[in-house]
Amino acid sequence: MPTTIAIIGAGAMGSAVGHRLTQHGARVLTLADGRSAKTVARIRDAGMEPVVIDEIAAADLILSIVPPAEAIGVAELLSPKLRDAKTKSAFIDFNAINPATMQQITSTLAGTGWDVLDGAIIGSPPTAESTGPKFYVSGDQARHSSLLEKHGLNLRLMEAPVGAASALKMVYAGLNKGLVGLGATMLLAAAGSGSAESLRGEMNDSLPELLLRFQKSIPDMYPKAYRWVAEMHEIAEFLGPDDPGSALFKAMADVFARIAADQNADGQLAAILNGVLENPA
Amino acid sequence: MPTTIAIIGAGAMGSAVGHRLTQHGARVLTLADGRSAKTVARIRDAGMEPVVIDEIAAADLILSIVPPAEAIGVAELLSPKLRDAKTKSAFIDFNAINPATMQQITSTLAGTGWDVLDGAIIGSPPTAESTGPKFYVSGDQARHSSLLEKHGLNLRLMEAPVGAASALKMVYAGLNKGLVGLGATMLLAAAGSGSAESLRGEMNDSLPELLLRFQKSIPDMYPKAYRWVAEMHEIAEFLGPDDPGSALFKAMADVFARIAADQNADGQLAAILNGVLENPA
Repeated sequence: MPTTIAIIGAGAMGSAVGHRLTQHGARVLTLADGRSAKTVARIRDAGMEPVVIDEIAAADLILSIVPPAEAIGVAELLSPKLRDAKTKSAFIDFNAINPATMQQITSTLAGTGWDVLDGAIIGSPPTAESTGPKFYVSGDQARHSSLLEKHGLNLRLMEAPVGAASALKMVYAGLNKGLVGLGATMLLAAAGSGSAESLRGEMNDSLPELLLRFQKSIPDMYPKAYRWVAEMHEIAEFLGPDDPGSALFKAMADVFARIAADQNADGQLAAILNGVLENPA
Repeated sequence: MPTTIAIIGAGAMGSAVGHRLTQHGARVLTLADGRSAKTVARIRDAGMEPVVIDEIAAADLILSIVPPAEAIGVAELLSPKLRDAKTKSAFIDFNAINPATMQQITSTLAGTGWDVLDGAIIGSPPTAESTGPKFYVSGDQARHSSLLEKHGLNLRLMEAPVGAASALKMVYAGLNKGLVGLGATMLLAAAGSGSAESLRGEMNDSLPELLLRFQKSIPDMYPKAYRWVAEMHEIAEFLGPDDPGSALFKAMADVFARIAADQNADGQLAAILNGVLENPA
């Protein structure tokens, strides 16, 4: 009998993960209640089986891969079903939530008899061409997550308790996206002060790898800026009020809110940034 | 008769610039009133001549290279002397000040008959081995700064008004030092959440050039953190209250204040950062 893995969330990441797992011999279930015809088609294209919630609770492993705001809801939905399940296995939350939210999920699922593990996905959805993304898992003493490695995922087991994988995701996103916010802020300031051309020249000389990174990462950010606002607030909360980084990431949220507003208006800021980067995109 | 250039400020940068200029045939004057024997010795080693203020006002070019907080004082000190000078030439402020402070300096020297130019030095003090740093100058329609190029400095003339060179310095420092503040914040958060080892591995995979940069720039920052606090506030002021970057750099100031306090205490944060970076320095 093949390994059965359930994935809650059949978005771009969830369905790509499902596809990779089915291609490596796993049977992959997902909830399809109330989903659009388009989503059900994507589920089937990925080789996943749309099932009802009781079948989910019979899986060998359940992965939650949903937007951060839905993470607690998934745990609440599953909690009674997992409590009633005859065989107990493990639930892994792979969402971009902070460790405090992860703790809430652990509490929600306490008493079900299931192991609750912390996960973080770093990288873009798997494709036929890529080996990525990486699946970090912490709190997995029983090595439940080895099933993922067995079925084609790039697993990175962390020798650390629940909370560490969520923290890793926060820290990595803070670095990566914070860099984009810092770059956008300074490039706009350069454009507004007559120093843009010299700045680009100077970066080309003394920070070439940063200029190259900005030429890709800043334009890639524009359409995602509205989502990053909430992510920056999540990172601020993770750092906590005693860390000066908390105010740093609240300000980052405002930087991205400004870009998001610009995207909904005339895209003038984006045009200025492209001009500084000499990126005609 | 050789070109005479006066440098106000014979610190590490000022005296190294003086040395470079004298080696390229310029006569270089500096104010020595009330300076320590050590400073006077450094002035002489650099081939510069310690003079009284009236001689400064007879130079072909005056450069101000002092700590940011002293920039306005230099202009106030020189103002009456420049007004009385028979031949008028140019004064270049090369200090790390924001464009509003540069405007104050222009006002202070208005009516002296001298051209007031805006400059920014980017890079480390000149040495026998280096071609750097770069000397950016804006507002120089009359091309006074060509004297600097003629005497061995790496000049970058900006086709932009007074204020642009100061802005460039703010923007470049904001990028470069902001990156260090962002890195220190996230690395400390990783260490506090059990994700440091995974973060370093992930950075090694997906952000290797950033990890390399941090391995040098974060430890280099510790002894300078106390100075960077004021610089971050200066950048916040430059961006202005309507720019979300203003709050960003106020938070950066707090990040460096935390490191500066740690340097004055037991250096525990520095030790944690070195551990994450695997930098035994």
